[in-house]
Amino acid sequence: MTAASTTVATRILGLDPGLRITGFGLIDRLGSQLRYVASGTIRTRDGELPGRLRTLLDGVREVIQTYSPDQVAVEKVFVNVNPQSTLLLGQARGAVICGAVSCDLPVAEYTALQVKQSVVGYGKASKEQVQHMVQRLLTLPAAPGPDAADALACAICHAHGAAGLGALAGAGTRRRGGRLIPGLDERFPR
Amino acid sequence: MTAASTTVATRILGLDPGLRITGFGLIDRLGSQLRYVASGTIRTRDGELPGRLRTLLDGVREVIQTYSPDQVAVEKVFVNVNPQSTLLLGQARGAVICGAVSCDLPVAEYTALQVKQSVVGYGKASKEQVQHMVQRLLTLPAAPGPDAADALACAICHAHGAAGLGALAGAGTRRRGGRLIPGLDERFPR
Repeated sequence: MTAASTTVATRILGLDPGLRITGFGLIDRLGSQLRYVASGTIRTRDGELPGRLRTLLDGVREVIQTYSPDQVAVEKVFVNVNPQSTLLLGQARGAVICGAVSCDLPVAEYTALQVKQSVVGYGKASKEQVQHMVQRLLTLPAAPGPDAADALACAICHAHGAAGLGALAGAGTRRRGGRLIPGLDERFPR
Repeated sequence: MTAASTTVATRILGLDPGLRITGFGLIDRLGSQLRYVASGTIRTRDGELPGRLRTLLDGVREVIQTYSPDQVAVEKVFVNVNPQSTLLLGQARGAVICGAVSCDLPVAEYTALQVKQSVVGYGKASKEQVQHMVQRLLTLPAAPGPDAADALACAICHAHGAAGLGALAGAGTRRRGGRLIPGLDERFPR
């Protein structure tokens, strides 16, 4: 690791695409430290698809213009059993990715399994477990909402992968089986 | 129909989205007349999805900047039996629609059934029949390629719908069962 990588923060935008609700979350990675920046949701109203896709496209671009991330991590969406739902979700994801690439940002993709493995250490973790671990890892006063938490988790997954897990295994953290945990006793609330 | 609608041409961009090949076709509607402007394909290379979506987004925007259409008509894509293919196609379609809405253009959507009904008069028409009828309706010296033909057919479908079928039932055309045909004897090559 070079000196620069420990002193210049990299800002990562995580995105959890959905046609109705797209979650976003921004973190700064400074060496082995992760710092929360902002998070929230972009919501579309019922109506014609082109207008909803525009809301997503413009929403992602607005988040990028407001917070100036360096890199984007997008969660790979769940393939639904209903082909029409899959198609709609695909179109939403296409719009969300277009928001990022139209701002000249590099986009990495992670499956839900990778995100949960990286953040909770268990690929089938519940939404509540993800919310809890995101709160812990980013030292937040409360758990973020589920969509924002998924987006922040995706950003954390990217930070882990991009820095190498070794770079993040700093003070107060231990690695086990390739995943990062902030201390075994703190993993779940009692 | 007002005088303005017969003297000011409306330029329509038809789009047939696909991740590998997206067809585009532009026509001018002047009163009851349709005039061919341009057509072609936007092609993406194998590689990471975000880069391919960007190629589609930028490609559609470039076509719009080059030809300045007033309205956009996009074909509703076929839901594949393979969910992963459906998801990929959905993302491509999302990027294509984003290309149009990011240029502030109104986007109408038509199913393949509607497009074929409008252009060939038969919802299950073959690709060759669509190519042939597009060539006839736009008085082209040769049939356009299948992707460009589908895009032009979508633009023609929009022109028919937007003007009302009656407005297009001018000289040399007859209507039957709500569809437009350029003369029964010319429908299919012998």
